[in-house]
Amino acid sequence: MSVFGQSVMRLEDAPLLRGEGAFAADIDFPRQIHMRVVRAEMAHARLVSVDVTPALDLPGVIAAWSAADVAEVPPIPFRATKVRGLEPYCQPILAQGRVRYVGEPVAVIFAEDAAVAEDAADLVLVELEELPALLDAAAEPTDFDATRNTEPTIVRKSYGELDAAFRDAHVVVALDLAIGRHSGVPMETRGAIARYDAAQDVLELHGTAKKQHWNRDEIARLLGRAPSSVHLFEGHVGGGFGVRGELYPEDLLVCLAALRLRRPVKWIEDRREHLVATNHSREQRHRIRAAVDAEGRILAIDNVFFHDQGAYIRTHGARVADMSAGLLLGPYRVPAYRATGHFRLTNKTPAATYRSPGRFEGSFVRERLMDAIAARCGLDRVEVRRRNFVDVSEMPYARPLDALGTDVVLDSGDYALLLDKALARFGWDARVADVARRRAAGESVGLGLGVFVEKSGLGPSDGVRMTVDATGAVELVTGAASVGQGVETALAQIAAAALGVDYRRVRVVRGRTDRIEFGSGAHASRVTVMSGSATHQAGLALAALAKQTAAALLQTPEDALEIVDGVVRRVDTPEGASVTLGEVARALAPGTKLSRDRATPGLTVESWFHSDHMAYPYGVHLAQVALDRGTGQVKVEHYLVGYDVGRAVNPMLVEGQIAGGFAQGLGGALYEEFRYDERGQPLSTTFADYLMPTIAEMPPLDILVTEDAPSPLNPIGVKGAGEGGTNAVGAAIASAVDDALGGRGQVTQLPIMPRDVLRFLAEGAA
Amino acid sequence: MSVFGQSVMRLEDAPLLRGEGAFAADIDFPRQIHMRVVRAEMAHARLVSVDVTPALDLPGVIAAWSAADVAEVPPIPFRATKVRGLEPYCQPILAQGRVRYVGEPVAVIFAEDAAVAEDAADLVLVELEELPALLDAAAEPTDFDATRNTEPTIVRKSYGELDAAFRDAHVVVALDLAIGRHSGVPMETRGAIARYDAAQDVLELHGTAKKQHWNRDEIARLLGRAPSSVHLFEGHVGGGFGVRGELYPEDLLVCLAALRLRRPVKWIEDRREHLVATNHSREQRHRIRAAVDAEGRILAIDNVFFHDQGAYIRTHGARVADMSAGLLLGPYRVPAYRATGHFRLTNKTPAATYRSPGRFEGSFVRERLMDAIAARCGLDRVEVRRRNFVDVSEMPYARPLDALGTDVVLDSGDYALLLDKALARFGWDARVADVARRRAAGESVGLGLGVFVEKSGLGPSDGVRMTVDATGAVELVTGAASVGQGVETALAQIAAAALGVDYRRVRVVRGRTDRIEFGSGAHASRVTVMSGSATHQAGLALAALAKQTAAALLQTPEDALEIVDGVVRRVDTPEGASVTLGEVARALAPGTKLSRDRATPGLTVESWFHSDHMAYPYGVHLAQVALDRGTGQVKVEHYLVGYDVGRAVNPMLVEGQIAGGFAQGLGGALYEEFRYDERGQPLSTTFADYLMPTIAEMPPLDILVTEDAPSPLNPIGVKGAGEGGTNAVGAAIASAVDDALGGRGQVTQLPIMPRDVLRFLAEGAA
Repeated sequence: MSVFGQSVMRLEDAPLLRGEGAFAADIDFPRQIHMRVVRAEMAHARLVSVDVTPALDLPGVIAAWSAADVAEVPPIPFRATKVRGLEPYCQPILAQGRVRYVGEPVAVIFAEDAAVAEDAADLVLVELEELPALLDAAAEPTDFDATRNTEPTIVRKSYGELDAAFRDAHVVVALDLAIGRHSGVPMETRGAIARYDAAQDVLELHGTAKKQHWNRDEIARLLGRAPSSVHLFEGHVGGGFGVRGELYPEDLLVCLAALRLRRPVKWIEDRREHLVATNHSREQRHRIRAAVDAEGRILAIDNVFFHDQGAYIRTHGARVADMSAGLLLGPYRVPAYRATGHFRLTNKTPAATYRSPGRFEGSFVRERLMDAIAARCGLDRVEVRRRNFVDVSEMPYARPLDALGTDVVLDSGDYALLLDKALARFGWDARVADVARRRAAGESVGLGLGVFVEKSGLGPSDGVRMTVDATGAVELVTGAASVGQGVETALAQIAAAALGVDYRRVRVVRGRTDRIEFGSGAHASRVTVMSGSATHQAGLALAALAKQTAAALLQTPEDALEIVDGVVRRVDTPEGASVTLGEVARALAPGTKLSRDRATPGLTVESWFHSDHMAYPYGVHLAQVALDRGTGQVKVEHYLVGYDVGRAVNPMLVEGQIAGGFAQGLGGALYEEFRYDERGQPLSTTFADYLMPTIAEMPPLDILVTEDAPSPLNPIGVKGAGEGGTNAVGAAIASAVDDALGGRGQVTQLPIMPRDVLRFLAEGAA
Repeated sequence: MSVFGQSVMRLEDAPLLRGEGAFAADIDFPRQIHMRVVRAEMAHARLVSVDVTPALDLPGVIAAWSAADVAEVPPIPFRATKVRGLEPYCQPILAQGRVRYVGEPVAVIFAEDAAVAEDAADLVLVELEELPALLDAAAEPTDFDATRNTEPTIVRKSYGELDAAFRDAHVVVALDLAIGRHSGVPMETRGAIARYDAAQDVLELHGTAKKQHWNRDEIARLLGRAPSSVHLFEGHVGGGFGVRGELYPEDLLVCLAALRLRRPVKWIEDRREHLVATNHSREQRHRIRAAVDAEGRILAIDNVFFHDQGAYIRTHGARVADMSAGLLLGPYRVPAYRATGHFRLTNKTPAATYRSPGRFEGSFVRERLMDAIAARCGLDRVEVRRRNFVDVSEMPYARPLDALGTDVVLDSGDYALLLDKALARFGWDARVADVARRRAAGESVGLGLGVFVEKSGLGPSDGVRMTVDATGAVELVTGAASVGQGVETALAQIAAAALGVDYRRVRVVRGRTDRIEFGSGAHASRVTVMSGSATHQAGLALAALAKQTAAALLQTPEDALEIVDGVVRRVDTPEGASVTLGEVARALAPGTKLSRDRATPGLTVESWFHSDHMAYPYGVHLAQVALDRGTGQVKVEHYLVGYDVGRAVNPMLVEGQIAGGFAQGLGGALYEEFRYDERGQPLSTTFADYLMPTIAEMPPLDILVTEDAPSPLNPIGVKGAGEGGTNAVGAAIASAVDDALGGRGQVTQLPIMPRDVLRFLAEGAA
């Protein structure tokens, strides 16, 4: 039985369980020095002066810099979408002339140890002249300063006859909805350890995550080096989620210091820093309207929204706004659509993507809208969704929109089927009856749902190099990264299945730019689709080469051979003459006769997979909640995530991704929010204020992974599994809470805090 | 003008001159522990017991092992020649049952710091029962112990009608000649720093040199690991020369300790250890006879020799004996030949190759023989060589012999021409006259010569990967190693010339097994020939790919394009439209249209060069010496090395190799010798006893590099330049000293020490 599709154990776990993981803080180099960042303490102020001299006087301090010392380094760039005009809003590595959010790097200290660096940072004299803080992205745009406006761009996408649809609509449903500011908060904060190897003229950056190759190229460009002289290394950092592994001022600062000071430079972010300095996400307000016919069928949607980017553009550019515009429609057939995304700057921490970016937001907005349509049309909430689904017969379904620079073509899917399966598994009908009984008994309980389409497998290209050594061990070198999702295991399974070996004999080398020239890291739920497909191809090519070579060694026709558990043998006489893959590799070593018949020796191939379109997995979230009428607390009593991933390489890993993703969605739905006071001072700078869900908050979670719609876009039929657990948590819980409140449509923003519930209950009672 | 052939500056020098070199002792890892080896203090003894407990009691000691603790590790293997039967004589990593030379590892200590480890080593109780030491390799073979004989094998090679030739000879010249035990003594002793990366399951060994890939494979095999999970890294260690970079017990011990103790383990050899533990070389005695006709033409040579291997076989197996047999004949036409090499074990430090192995010895023997033939036949020493040269018209000249597993086919060469050029440059005739005048005035002065053929470019295969990045920087990844010879510069020049870029834009990555699967390191004067040819091919292939891509970008036929200084431009309108190589690379990045037309993206190629035969450079050494009749000291007054390398990639580097090689030859000719007392105690364990030549001993050295005979075996015509400076120093100086003594043939062994000269002078006066 092929290991593809089996819930085998994770290859990643052994070192982690033995305490041999290599997290950023574990990485040390002899002679290393420590960096500490001096950060702005006002949200918006003129930067009158920075005096580092008092810090330099502290014994153990090696250097201290402010903006003037790093003036040659350009601001940090972003990965472009089709949105233009953002360049002037990128962040310099140290604040120049003005500070724009609390936490902005203003100066840096380099010292012999971390404690001295921290003490020295307190001695730096930063003179600020406070300016009014701009905090509301939905307020009218204004000039940030002479050259910059708080609305750098408006993201517009549209198709169809919108005005006509609204004119002809049976009803128009309009909502004003908001998603709160929250973000990925990984177990380990960011860290960056740079080292310059003068002997080789190579700059190394350790503790990196997620996007090594892109970061390598940009670090090289910003520091004026050849990219082949910069190497990034990933350990066990994990926790990408849109925040960790992006390129930040601190990454450049440690690199620059390693080059200038000729000593390794280590920086480890503390938690307070993390909560103000690392990318925030999600904060968006949508004024959305739907034109609907008499049967509850959508005729058009007009999606006006305000994206709160914070103080600067970061590496994601306008991707969240782009996807909020391009992917909002989800599984529904919408004849006309217009998105107007106001991309706005405020004096808050800069924002970027967070797991299921633009879709967590969009699903909340869209599914609130579907509930509202159901209510307005007097339809069942499930039925209104069924009526609007794109049908399986319409697949592939091209929507005249784009997202992340690709045309949106839903590749495959049977949304109605998954909804049916999910409702049946959840026992929806029985729960409806049960909820009705409990309500009658005075409880505030409710059911909610969210249906969604995810996106995954962003192209255009991904490649791997796969090699069998003389002992039959397989090395798979990929430009993908490990963010904890089990990439080593999944790729090893794909490789093993294609080649015919035990997956435990496949060592996956990832997140190292010195081992492979190109790579795309881990983001956009793309690794299993793109790197996985390249791995599958490589495995097949390697199997073909192994059989071709073994055919010569065994004097047997190639097509009479099969590879089973690392042994090439005859299909018809499996107990007969055979060679191991290690023996085949040795027969292809440099200098052998067989190797000379080929351009290059070795049992090795490099294979590339290309794709112009994303693959679209889809899902259903179902929630049952009970409200505590005394405290306003929302208790999630039961939850189901139904998700179709095309094909699951390792169902256990998919379930793990979904469970973890759900927890993150739950945080955004009920607990996590970065709040600011009226002067822009952050109020969520500890875990006492920024509330992460713990195991105590996790409800009974049922996960239904289906494989009804393999993607036609790749040879293994997979779709990304990384974001479906997060996507509709806000939508489904809002739906359920609203249902528990009587279905009045009171829930219009996330997170739904106890104070909100108490207010809603009071409104309902009024 | 092509950079190929120019004496451009070395790329290696900048970090070295700035003090940023990374020598083995400079390599540190956090949490590292230090290893100290407990060594045998008797040359031959039964190992009754080893008790490490007292060492373990010392605070800071982490572990201590004797043979029983490492019993699962097989003895260290060797690189085979056609000589068989040596396996039982390989060295275990810790002595088992018997110690066989002073310095043999008996136990190891691991401790928190190096001083503690050294103190602890003194506490280990080693009980020995002394046995007679066997020290004369020319003595009759005997049983070493029950299973082993002191003569593991006899190396035999022959062709032609030897007996008939000797029967028919006009004269038979017979000599008994000996070459002293000396070896490569690099500036930095050996060092090995092992680290186990549990997160990746990768074992790293740092501080390696010369043969990383072979050592990787053997370390993996001996420790039961997949070779792809073992990575070796080379820094600035340099100093291969047959000794450093070979695989020794200490390398295995640090690796094993890193795996077991889960901490980095560092070992740095001290000088005393180096002189008893690291490979010795050269000690060989030849009883050689030549059958000569009346015109001084050689009819046959019978070469019986005794090779003193020391106590164990090391990684070179019987290569020195193999080459002493197969390559002795040098530039001369010899109709019949027989070599009988008694490969003998003694209770001395094990031996291996040293720069120009088997040829330094063979040239001394052969050229002493030529001088003797000249004397016996009453011919001029130069004339007798001319008469016996293989003529240029006979090239390629196949000799029915093999060496290093390849058939000996002299690929090209005009020996007479080089001899003429060298004599002219040296002013031989004038010096003959001058010497005669000075002798008449009572001085003991003399002239000597040695003519030789070197070998180089051992195959079978070598490959490089060459990549241009988005800034036009070139990375050349090679499995070759840097032993100080300037490989980075030479390969960069070859790459730059073939591609059309500045050689300073080529960064050569070498000596790292994680960057390229296969490699041959640096030995056998093979790098420029084999890796250089692969580089040349890669550069041409990359140029072709760049032109093909640029042709599409510029809409110009490929053959109208040239690449000059990194720019692809039209030959006919160089000032017109053009693209840089960096732009070409960007056009081939993953996802681009042009990249998708190819199997793999990137401006990158891997190219392999194959060769079944060695290339044979050749040379002439000319020496003028004066003897101090009071002290017996030999003063080399003038020296010339003439060497034809086919083509010189960088003449300055060739000259540097020759000058350095000459100094090493000078040591073996006049100063360096590992001596033992009658119980096998080494007498040369400090630089006060083992005399290395210094700058004060270096004579005026004239170097004549010629390029008259490019090799037809490779596309760039090169032959190795590494060993010609060493090859005939012993031969030429012996010839000159003998001449100064009156040409009696008294000089029959190396080194020629002052006490020998005084004895010869006394004999001459008697």
